[in-house]
Amino acid sequence: MLQEMKIKNSIAQIKKERPLILNITNAVTMDFIANGLLCLGASPVMSKSEQELEDLIQLANAVVINLGTLDEKFITLCQRACALANHLKKPIVLDPVGAGASQYRTRTSLDFINNFRIAIVKGNASEILALSGASIKTKGVESTVQSDSAIKNAQDFSVLHEVAIVISGKTDIIVDANNIQQSTYGSPLMPKITGTGCLLTAVIAAFHAVEKNRFEASVLATLFYGMCGESAAKTSQGPASFKIKFLDELYEKN
Amino acid sequence: MLQEMKIKNSIAQIKKERPLILNITNAVTMDFIANGLLCLGASPVMSKSEQELEDLIQLANAVVINLGTLDEKFITLCQRACALANHLKKPIVLDPVGAGASQYRTRTSLDFINNFRIAIVKGNASEILALSGASIKTKGVESTVQSDSAIKNAQDFSVLHEVAIVISGKTDIIVDANNIQQSTYGSPLMPKITGTGCLLTAVIAAFHAVEKNRFEASVLATLFYGMCGESAAKTSQGPASFKIKFLDELYEKN
Amino acid sequence: MLQEMKIKNSIAQIKKERPLILNITNAVTMDFIANGLLCLGASPVMSKSEQELEDLIQLANAVVINLGTLDEKFITLCQRACALANHLKKPIVLDPVGAGASQYRTRTSLDFINNFRIAIVKGNASEILALSGASIKTKGVESTVQSDSAIKNAQDFSVLHEVAIVISGKTDIIVDANNIQQSTYGSPLMPKITGTGCLLTAVIAAFHAVEKNRFEASVLATLFYGMCGESAAKTSQGPASFKIKFLDELYEKN
Repeated sequence: MLQEMKIKNSIAQIKKERPLILNITNAVTMDFIANGLLCLGASPVMSKSEQELEDLIQLANAVVINLGTLDEKFITLCQRACALANHLKKPIVLDPVGAGASQYRTRTSLDFINNFRIAIVKGNASEILALSGASIKTKGVESTVQSDSAIKNAQDFSVLHEVAIVISGKTDIIVDANNIQQSTYGSPLMPKITGTGCLLTAVIAAFHAVEKNRFEASVLATLFYGMCGESAAKTSQGPASFKIKFLDELYEKN
Repeated sequence: MLQEMKIKNSIAQIKKERPLILNITNAVTMDFIANGLLCLGASPVMSKSEQELEDLIQLANAVVINLGTLDEKFITLCQRACALANHLKKPIVLDPVGAGASQYRTRTSLDFINNFRIAIVKGNASEILALSGASIKTKGVESTVQSDSAIKNAQDFSVLHEVAIVISGKTDIIVDANNIQQSTYGSPLMPKITGTGCLLTAVIAAFHAVEKNRFEASVLATLFYGMCGESAAKTSQGPASFKIKFLDELYEKN
Repeated sequence: MLQEMKIKNSIAQIKKERPLILNITNAVTMDFIANGLLCLGASPVMSKSEQELEDLIQLANAVVINLGTLDEKFITLCQRACALANHLKKPIVLDPVGAGASQYRTRTSLDFINNFRIAIVKGNASEILALSGASIKTKGVESTVQSDSAIKNAQDFSVLHEVAIVISGKTDIIVDANNIQQSTYGSPLMPKITGTGCLLTAVIAAFHAVEKNRFEASVLATLFYGMCGESAAKTSQGPASFKIKFLDELYEKN
């Protein structure tokens, strides 16, 4: 398959170049993100300090902004990181965790998209719908909406803000102004571990560090991620053993 | 067994209703709590921001306050969460982690119990004794006291503050003004992984979201938790492989 | 072997005395550190609050300062902890995570070494070289330098600041003013999980709590840690399953 070869190529490049992915992210899933990126062959770094942002972004190949647990201080840090990343032309991948669950999260996510050049936004259907102005009900940070109902809104949003959008779910959907691609790889165990969405965002950033086309990078990363999940699920007893096998797959598969 | 059927019922209800459990909690064990609640079938959400508390508590079915790593900002956040939860009539489950290890923790825990309606307090014997005024020696956040010596104090405390109390340990003890129940399920591996106490607190909150009687909810959750630990220990090589099997048990067992 | 017997002795003492290790540390790897120390038999406690530092340091047998994700508030907390630990004569083990990756981290690490009595510094070769004034390039928080090039600098630094230094890497090197020891135990999987460096620092602290000679404690802890890694790697499929087996080894091996 052409796409499987492209995935292999991207991963070989990640393992060779070890792109540095700066994560401004929530405390809940930091460990999972860092381990996932290491398994993939990328170099993770986490920061919560403005003083070192410029040094780190200079070194970074991509910047992940994840709004999992946000407060005023964290938002200020993210704003500074986005301004620097835009200035230094490092791509930003945004994960608007819980947009729709609280107005605070929805508004904050939109502020980032309106005020900075974001390359890729990755969310579940609830989050993407909340950002694109649809009126929906959200259950915490988990999605309760069918992914496909979000496609039309996502594409309009993509055109308006010049971002690629990944809607993760049972079927993953990747859109930008001109393209739509769907992926049905994955496993029902994936939403049963915390941080699968957060790590996907970071993996997309790692792919985008070596594949400059943001739609292409999003597609390859999402397909690869789903394939790893599908393989891992075959021999798992439950979510926790699945998580271990899934990380091992990220390490081995290519 | 009557109690095993009640446990099955509660879990079926949790899996069906997917109650949203808001956790205001320490960074050390967030990942474990979130994964444990997902395994159980509940929906976890973590927050560290006052701005979204009202939105989240409105949606939440129970609120967990865990004092694992506390500072002034965190305490203010917890106070606001408790006030809102009391106002919106959402039950609060409190984990006074490390009460007795520092005066700061003991005093803070007591402030919450004195100033807000707490439904259930879950601690180890050292912590419960510290709160109920006994003079004890504590070793960090681990308990060094026999659980049973805490029963009398706990029951007086329960009457005074109208809370159900779970004392976790080799033997788990659940008391309220009128009832005492003990459980000897569990495994010596449980205290060898960090966060087993924290996750029990969150699991009690999930049970209380579907079982309105707080004593009953505490008993069923604690029995279930111990049973999962006992099963998981049978095939484990050490604490880390135990943790994986234990989470898988929370997912499968019922 | 003499050294293997000494390791056995130290571990037996740790399991018996359960030394309390206070960790002032980053959020990414807290869970791994806490679980690793519990497996070893030590008692971990994490804190982020000045109010309880004095109580906790009074109880602690060693204090770990880990600069994984630092900001001004965290630095102030660490300074207060170091001052108290020096006053109360509790040994400090410092992990200057990412020194060299940002000037902020390098400068902060040096401030601690200049202003407080630090017993042991544990870093990778990049970090130790950055601290000892060499001009190097760093990739995030991972090392890209051969460990052995750091020995001469480390020993000068050790004499100047009266610290023992552990340089972790493919070959681990432990130096103080009068001694050098190398260890080649370990596995290529160790740098593929986040926090292996952080946990080694905490394990060194636990050994130093029972073995007063800081060079000896550093050597025994580092050898033991590498041996556990080497055993665990033999039956692992990838980094995540390795991590589980490694923690189980810390628990079982002695």
